[in-house]
Amino acid sequence: MIKTMDWRGNVLVLLDQTKLPDIIDFIACYDYRRVAQAIRSMEVRGAPAIGVAAAFAMVLGYKEIRMHGLSGTDVLKELEVFKRELIATRPTAVNLAWAVNRIWDMAVKANINRTIDSVDILESAAVKIYDDNISNNVKIGHFGSELLSANSTVLTHCNAGALATCGWGTALGVVRQGYADGKIKMVYADETRPLLQGARLTAWELEQDNIPVTLITDNMAAWTMKTKKIKAVIVGADRIALNGDVANKIGTYGVALAAKALNIPFYVAAPSTTFDFKMSTGISIPIEERNGDEVRIFRGKTTAPENIQVFNPGFDITPHDLITGIITEYGVLIEPYEDMIRQLARKLRRNIND
Amino acid sequence: MIKTMDWRGNVLVLLDQTKLPDIIDFIACYDYRRVAQAIRSMEVRGAPAIGVAAAFAMVLGYKEIRMHGLSGTDVLKELEVFKRELIATRPTAVNLAWAVNRIWDMAVKANINRTIDSVDILESAAVKIYDDNISNNVKIGHFGSELLSANSTVLTHCNAGALATCGWGTALGVVRQGYADGKIKMVYADETRPLLQGARLTAWELEQDNIPVTLITDNMAAWTMKTKKIKAVIVGADRIALNGDVANKIGTYGVALAAKALNIPFYVAAPSTTFDFKMSTGISIPIEERNGDEVRIFRGKTTAPENIQVFNPGFDITPHDLITGIITEYGVLIEPYEDMIRQLARKLRRNIND
Repeated sequence: MIKTMDWRGNVLVLLDQTKLPDIIDFIACYDYRRVAQAIRSMEVRGAPAIGVAAAFAMVLGYKEIRMHGLSGTDVLKELEVFKRELIATRPTAVNLAWAVNRIWDMAVKANINRTIDSVDILESAAVKIYDDNISNNVKIGHFGSELLSANSTVLTHCNAGALATCGWGTALGVVRQGYADGKIKMVYADETRPLLQGARLTAWELEQDNIPVTLITDNMAAWTMKTKKIKAVIVGADRIALNGDVANKIGTYGVALAAKALNIPFYVAAPSTTFDFKMSTGISIPIEERNGDEVRIFRGKTTAPENIQVFNPGFDITPHDLITGIITEYGVLIEPYEDMIRQLARKLRRNIND
Repeated sequence: MIKTMDWRGNVLVLLDQTKLPDIIDFIACYDYRRVAQAIRSMEVRGAPAIGVAAAFAMVLGYKEIRMHGLSGTDVLKELEVFKRELIATRPTAVNLAWAVNRIWDMAVKANINRTIDSVDILESAAVKIYDDNISNNVKIGHFGSELLSANSTVLTHCNAGALATCGWGTALGVVRQGYADGKIKMVYADETRPLLQGARLTAWELEQDNIPVTLITDNMAAWTMKTKKIKAVIVGADRIALNGDVANKIGTYGVALAAKALNIPFYVAAPSTTFDFKMSTGISIPIEERNGDEVRIFRGKTTAPENIQVFNPGFDITPHDLITGIITEYGVLIEPYEDMIRQLARKLRRNIND
């Protein structure tokens, strides 16, 4: 499996996901601004992956500031500008803000303690976020696989795979582990318009791993669930509120409604960094609206009348009552979500304080 | 509004709908085989439109047979071959078989009665099917508009418009009349993958008529319904079973499930020729599966890994319990559908016998 990103000390190399699967190309980011641009343009995408990329971008930014000879609070003033710019690149996924703030907090601490090797400390922290992402995905995969019965046919939306993370994947981590465990015999992948992450990325990723995959258009999901004996739906998440409401790629909500009507378990697979413990419900999660040309134009070919009005939300909110379980690296959360998510928050606070 | 088709005595001119909206091009069909090809390739599409086109194709075929000097039962033997070929072009929409059989029945009758002007009789019958289609759409529009409250925002799937019929449209006939009556302020159009009839045809048709339209991808339908205060969903139909189950463009079922969950009325607009009174439920309606390249390739550009497995059903079945009303030229049918549809069948038999 090709790596989504590779940190080489003074450069973050990103796989250009806008060109997949036709062209395998890489972007060398020597500057945090180039990482910010890559996040905005979705050259790197997937909530966990953009979080890790942004952590490395903070390290690049910090190194730049230090090279300029700044010191003391001037370092933090400058870094705060970079931090804000990075967080603003995409508003919905919370892993991004989480990762950026984690590096920021270390910079603040280093500043207070006048740490000499602060660059190394920040870099190690970013590398740890990267490593944790992969190991947490493996844990998510194991917890998720246990939920599946043998020889299941499952459906997924968008790409919550190795390409959306640093490797293995969240929803596709469950698929990979499930396939290895003999739990999965076929994966139906929604193509996921407008940017076709399902067709270009999920189908490609699974094909590379020789996991049986069938591509469908998004509007075939409900009929496929009904007629192809789908045993479970597994998706990723961009932000999860305290009550269990989930923001994920546009279309997730419709798939969840169909799953509910057809009594098919609907699972969300996401690391604990996806939870926004300060957001009580999904209603307040900001939904990014993207350029209408993403809908009007596909690879230079028009799909619709020029200048037609378009509504292009990047995400939607799936209410918690449509969700059978949320699979994290700490185990599977179920209703009542709020109680379980508060427990998770306490556990994470303890881990940090340990 | 550009005409979907134009009959000129010995040639059926079809608007090439595969090239819209970029190119406005016409196909002159001097031969019934060319019409059959146009139906298969969806150069002409929409259940009512392919029915009327096939009726004219039968006339072209009949003329060809007569030119070859055949007579008596030989005429019918040959015409039956043409009839079968036309009906086989697309299996799901029943209007096609209905129209072809109507011309066939007249040919049989003319043969029994040794009618001299049989060509004229068949041609007049096809022209009447064409004219009735438009006048029935206007009636459907009026009945449908009455169901809407003022300043409604509605959602439609695929294209059940002027382009799917001989003019005015079924679902879009309701939209046109509703707009004229001040009932509609915005139409959300699902783009309708894989062939984008919503983006290419519905958005274009409504824009031409200055009816406010916003294009969305199919996976945005549920979220749009929830967040944009959609007051009604209106779609067309390709075949309606005796119990009210509706076959329509793939994706309709998912939209209907979302409408049900959100308590939004879901209307089907279709002429009486869409009913298959011999089919007790939707389960037996044949669902056409089309070539996977429709999903894998868009206008010469690949959307997915080459040769990836694809499931590409052209239609799905929406069960009658998800349908608020079926709008026909005779009025609006509601539950219990089976009783009302049997009444409709009796009325149609009386009309024919009158």
